[in-house]
Amino acid sequence: MSALQQFIEREIPKVNAALYALLDQSTMPASLKESMHYSIEAGGKRVRPLLVLAVLEDALEADERVEDRYAVAAAIELIHTYSLIHDDLPAMDDDDYRRGKLTNHKKFGEAMAILAGDAMQAMAFQSIAEAHSIPADIRIELVQLLAKASGADGMVGGQVLDLEGETRQLSLEELEHVHIHKTGALLTYSIEAGAILSRMCEHERSELKRYARHIGLAFQIKDDILDVTSTTEQLGKPANSDEASEKSTYPAILGLEQSEKQMQAHYEQAIDAIAFFQEDSYLHQFAHYIVARDL
Amino acid sequence: MSALQQFIEREIPKVNAALYALLDQSTMPASLKESMHYSIEAGGKRVRPLLVLAVLEDALEADERVEDRYAVAAAIELIHTYSLIHDDLPAMDDDDYRRGKLTNHKKFGEAMAILAGDAMQAMAFQSIAEAHSIPADIRIELVQLLAKASGADGMVGGQVLDLEGETRQLSLEELEHVHIHKTGALLTYSIEAGAILSRMCEHERSELKRYARHIGLAFQIKDDILDVTSTTEQLGKPANSDEASEKSTYPAILGLEQSEKQMQAHYEQAIDAIAFFQEDSYLHQFAHYIVARDL
Repeated sequence: MSALQQFIEREIPKVNAALYALLDQSTMPASLKESMHYSIEAGGKRVRPLLVLAVLEDALEADERVEDRYAVAAAIELIHTYSLIHDDLPAMDDDDYRRGKLTNHKKFGEAMAILAGDAMQAMAFQSIAEAHSIPADIRIELVQLLAKASGADGMVGGQVLDLEGETRQLSLEELEHVHIHKTGALLTYSIEAGAILSRMCEHERSELKRYARHIGLAFQIKDDILDVTSTTEQLGKPANSDEASEKSTYPAILGLEQSEKQMQAHYEQAIDAIAFFQEDSYLHQFAHYIVARDL
Repeated sequence: MSALQQFIEREIPKVNAALYALLDQSTMPASLKESMHYSIEAGGKRVRPLLVLAVLEDALEADERVEDRYAVAAAIELIHTYSLIHDDLPAMDDDDYRRGKLTNHKKFGEAMAILAGDAMQAMAFQSIAEAHSIPADIRIELVQLLAKASGADGMVGGQVLDLEGETRQLSLEELEHVHIHKTGALLTYSIEAGAILSRMCEHERSELKRYARHIGLAFQIKDDILDVTSTTEQLGKPANSDEASEKSTYPAILGLEQSEKQMQAHYEQAIDAIAFFQEDSYLHQFAHYIVARDL
């Protein structure tokens, strides 16, 4: 097993424990808890929480890392999960399956899916706010940046652009603009949150954001490529669904070969941005994993 | 014009200015901004922002009140507005009109309405986080309590209870339980935010929360009564809609006369809780306005 795999297998249970602790401490109605629990345990790869934790792992010694980093990691996963629940709704992408399981609204109905997503967003901010071992000024900075990254200027704005782009073929520039907001903003936040929790200097923080921007785009290109080259069984959702829905994708605009090259170029830019870390750092390994994965 | 009316007419434009400033400073897609703007300017009574401001007005001298109180007031209105947009969706209450105007999804489509609501929630937390003249530890407490009041343990949880109660007649106790969460949690937060910003002692803060709980229930009973006794034109939505939809209401459970008495009892409890304020305080006037209003 690679060092990254060991790290992932060690850290994911801790992220999950933080997520379940948030649900367990709540007095919410049982039906709402069931719906939220269903989507939280639906087998996500926990990429965003792992990115926060990887930065801390690379930047700090073990005794310098605050325990409450898992509360921040959980907050990001809650935002990501709520966005998937809302994106899957009939009025949006109208998906019946996600990661091989029924989507939240297919299982619990549309009203509950909308409300479970709404509650997850609030719980994300609550999780950071209640991470008391992190100083208040750091927590409020984390809240502010998460709100911006996940809201109208970031993820939600990107989803609007994505919906508006569905009716026509986008240019490469427009497609990048969509991704930088829809998925890139939250990935970048994950990395930046790690940098903030590690008390990095402005230069390193800005370089890490550059890293994040490039692995975000590499991640998205890889997703588009996998949709073309994988089977439905591998993906846990219908393969070639992008082509079927006439979605703008990198392979559709550039072809497969050029898409691979673009992805490789973003990978190299990402690696360049983290020159101040050792070459076997988790962030190096993450960048490699993102372009090499087959799922 | 009463002192309260003067206060309201003076303060609402400042709350609106804070709301529009949040929209204006954003780089979000124009279509999203239009949808959010539409619901924000849809003529709400701004009761919740006014409650925050009223506490500050009663508790502090003019030069002690921070300018950023409007950012906190705006945050609460954003949460309230997002909840109305989502509640009106076809999967929820399926309402075509709100305050005499088309609901957000009737005007902009369901996808945009879901996303506008999601973006408003994020913007609410951003607004508090960016209120830099308020110390970071106070801001983070305001974020934490707002997340709790608006999420699964508060407003969203109450909406779930409300939806689940629609299929049967609720008992008075169950109905109160719904209201304490669905509308009461955010009203109580509004008052508590004012108390926090005024640096009140624990005793006063707890008394103000008692006040909030009672005016919240009085407010809801009044709403139910108005639905029975008003015309469609007065309400800006169909009158008697509660009865038509077989909703559990105070008049349906208690009859009109007993509902009025209950409302009066809550009013008196509310007044009792704010004995440490002068009898002409804005909070006294607010309590009176809530039970005496005809809209």
